[in-house]
Amino acid sequence: MGDPTGIGPEVIAGALGSPSLSQRVGAVPWTAVVIGRASILQRAARVMQVDLTFEACENWEQVETVHSAASSACDGMPKRIACLQAAREESESALDGRIDARGGQAAYDCLLRATELCRAGRLAAMVTAPLQKKGMELAGHHWPGHTELLAHLCGVENTAMMLYLPPGKPNHGGPFGLGVIHVTLHMALREIFHWITQENILRTIQLTENYFSKLISAQVERRPRIAVTALNPHSGESGRFGREEIEIIAPAVRQARDLGIDVSGPWAVDTLMPRAARGDFDAVVAMYHDQGHIALKLLDMFEAVNITLGLPIVRTSVAHGTAHDIAWKGIADSAGMAQAIVAAIRLSG
Amino acid sequence: MGDPTGIGPEVIAGALGSPSLSQRVGAVPWTAVVIGRASILQRAARVMQVDLTFEACENWEQVETVHSAASSACDGMPKRIACLQAAREESESALDGRIDARGGQAAYDCLLRATELCRAGRLAAMVTAPLQKKGMELAGHHWPGHTELLAHLCGVENTAMMLYLPPGKPNHGGPFGLGVIHVTLHMALREIFHWITQENILRTIQLTENYFSKLISAQVERRPRIAVTALNPHSGESGRFGREEIEIIAPAVRQARDLGIDVSGPWAVDTLMPRAARGDFDAVVAMYHDQGHIALKLLDMFEAVNITLGLPIVRTSVAHGTAHDIAWKGIADSAGMAQAIVAAIRLSG
Repeated sequence: MGDPTGIGPEVIAGALGSPSLSQRVGAVPWTAVVIGRASILQRAARVMQVDLTFEACENWEQVETVHSAASSACDGMPKRIACLQAAREESESALDGRIDARGGQAAYDCLLRATELCRAGRLAAMVTAPLQKKGMELAGHHWPGHTELLAHLCGVENTAMMLYLPPGKPNHGGPFGLGVIHVTLHMALREIFHWITQENILRTIQLTENYFSKLISAQVERRPRIAVTALNPHSGESGRFGREEIEIIAPAVRQARDLGIDVSGPWAVDTLMPRAARGDFDAVVAMYHDQGHIALKLLDMFEAVNITLGLPIVRTSVAHGTAHDIAWKGIADSAGMAQAIVAAIRLSG
Repeated sequence: MGDPTGIGPEVIAGALGSPSLSQRVGAVPWTAVVIGRASILQRAARVMQVDLTFEACENWEQVETVHSAASSACDGMPKRIACLQAAREESESALDGRIDARGGQAAYDCLLRATELCRAGRLAAMVTAPLQKKGMELAGHHWPGHTELLAHLCGVENTAMMLYLPPGKPNHGGPFGLGVIHVTLHMALREIFHWITQENILRTIQLTENYFSKLISAQVERRPRIAVTALNPHSGESGRFGREEIEIIAPAVRQARDLGIDVSGPWAVDTLMPRAARGDFDAVVAMYHDQGHIALKLLDMFEAVNITLGLPIVRTSVAHGTAHDIAWKGIADSAGMAQAIVAAIRLSG
C-alpha cells in the first residue's frame, strides 16, 4: 500500500479497477492481494470512482477464501480484492495529505509483511506504492529508500535499482524496452565518488546482464546490449574533465567484455540517452541517481517502472513519489502502477 | 565555420541552402557572412547537394560588394554568400573526418575574426559551428570550449551557457521556449562543488532574468519564471542526501527573490525537467553540465540552440558536436544550425 498519506492507495485502486489491466496482462492467470488496510483502499476506490470491494483479511486463509470466491464469480478482473490487514488501525486517521508517522509506519509494516509472503512463496511478486522517507523516519525507521530496506530484509547486499520503460511506445527503447540501472543511488552527490569503483560498476553490469538475459532469451537468441555512462561531461574529454572514465569506468567495461557481456562505454550521458531511447541499447548502466532519473522521467514519468535487481524476490514499483499535493483528490494518474503490476506479472511468469 | 574536419561546413551549407530558413525568419532583413574558407564551404555545399556559391572575400569591402550584388539579384535567400577567408589555406587539406591541428587552428582563427567583427559592430550576431577541443589543443590553444574562449576574447567573466529550445513544439516549454542555464560547465564532476556558491548561483539567476526579460517583454508584460535545480537527488531530502540545497542554493534563491526575480527552487531535477518541458517555467538554472544537457538533448537534440549569456555580443551555436563519424558524408542534420541562425536573428533584432 505504501504510505497512505500519499497517492499510493488511489493509484492501487485506479490500476486494479482499470478494465484495460487484464487485457494488457494477457493470458497469464494472476490475482492481486493488497497488503495494507481495507478501509483505506475502499476510501481510495470511492475517491477514484472505481467499482471495487476490498475485503479485509486478517490472515492468509481469509485471503484464499476471497480469491476462490472471486475467481469463481467472473472471468476478468475480480471486483472483490483481498486486502491483508498489515497496516495498523491508526493509519486510517492519517489521510489528509500530510507527512505523518502513522503513514510511515504503515508503509513499513506493509513492506515487511509483503517481503515475508514473497520469501515464503505465497506471493509471486511484490508491487510497491510510494513511501515517504520523512514519514518513515518519524516512525523510527531510518532507510534511504525502498531498495535499501528490501535488500536488508532479504539479507542481500548486491542489488541495484532500475528504472524501466516497457516497450511499445516511441522512445521506450527497443523491442525489450529500456532499463537504466544505477551504480549509486540515494546519497549526496559528493559521496558518489567513493562508491563509483571498478568492482561496483562490474557488479551492476552483471546484474543488468542477468536480468535482461532472462527477459530477452525467452523470445530471441541474443545477448542484451548494455551501455555504460561516463561520470564527467563529454565523457571526461580524454582526461581533461576528470579521470574516472580512464581509470575506473573503462577498465570495468573491459572486464565485463572479457566475461562475454555485450557492453560498451563509457559514453557521454547526454548523447547516450537519446540513442538508448531510440533503441540502440537494451539497458544503460548509470553512475548516479539523477543521470538515470532525469532521462527516464523525461521520457515517460508515468509509465516508468522501478525494478530492484539482485533480490531473491520479484519486486516492481511505481517511479513516482507520494505526491502529497494531489493526494486524496481522485486525480492521481494510475498508469505507472498499472505498468508496475504488468511488469511484476511478466517477471514472475 | 568551426572545425572543418567535422560536420560544421555541411550544416552551414545545409542551413543556408534551406528554402524554409527565410520563411522562418519572417520579415526581418538579414544576410549571412561565413567566416571560414570558401573552398571548404563550396565542397560542403556540393556534398549536401545545395545550390549555393560561396564567394571568397579577403576583406570586409569585398564582403559588402558580394552583399550588394546578391541583394539586388533576388528577394529571398541569396544564392551567393560572402565567405570571409579567416581560415588558412592549409585547412583545406584536413577534411577527412579526423581530428587535426589544422582543423583546430581554423576553428580558432574563425572565432577570433568573428568576435572582432561583432565587437566592431560589423556583424549583428555570431553563430558558431562545432569545434573539437582536442583539435584546438593540437594547434596550441587550450580552452575547454567556445563559451570560455569567447568570454576571454570579450574581456568578460560573468557569462553562462544556455541550451535553448525555441517554442512551437510539444515539450519545448511555454510560449517563449525553454532555456537551461548552467552554473558550472566544462569541468570534472568532482570540481563542481567548489564553484557551486551562493554568489555564482545568484549571478546565473540574474543573467537568466536579464535575458528572458528582454525576450518576454517584447511581447507581454510579465517577468520570466525561473526554476533552480537541486544538486543532490530528491533535492537532498531535507539534508539527508547533502546540505548544499539548505546552505547554498535556497539562500541564493531567496536573495534573488528579494531582488524581485520570479524564481523558485531548489527543485529535484528529475521531476523539475518534465514540468519545465510542459511550460511551467521559462528557464531552469542547472547546477552542472549534464543536468541540463541530458534533459535538453533528450527533448530535442537537433533543435536545441546554445546561447552564451553575459557577452557584449550576440552569440548562438548548435548544441551538437563535430560528429567526425558522419563528417563529409552529406548526411548531417542541419536543423540545429538553422535554429541557431533564426535565434541569432531574433536576438539581435
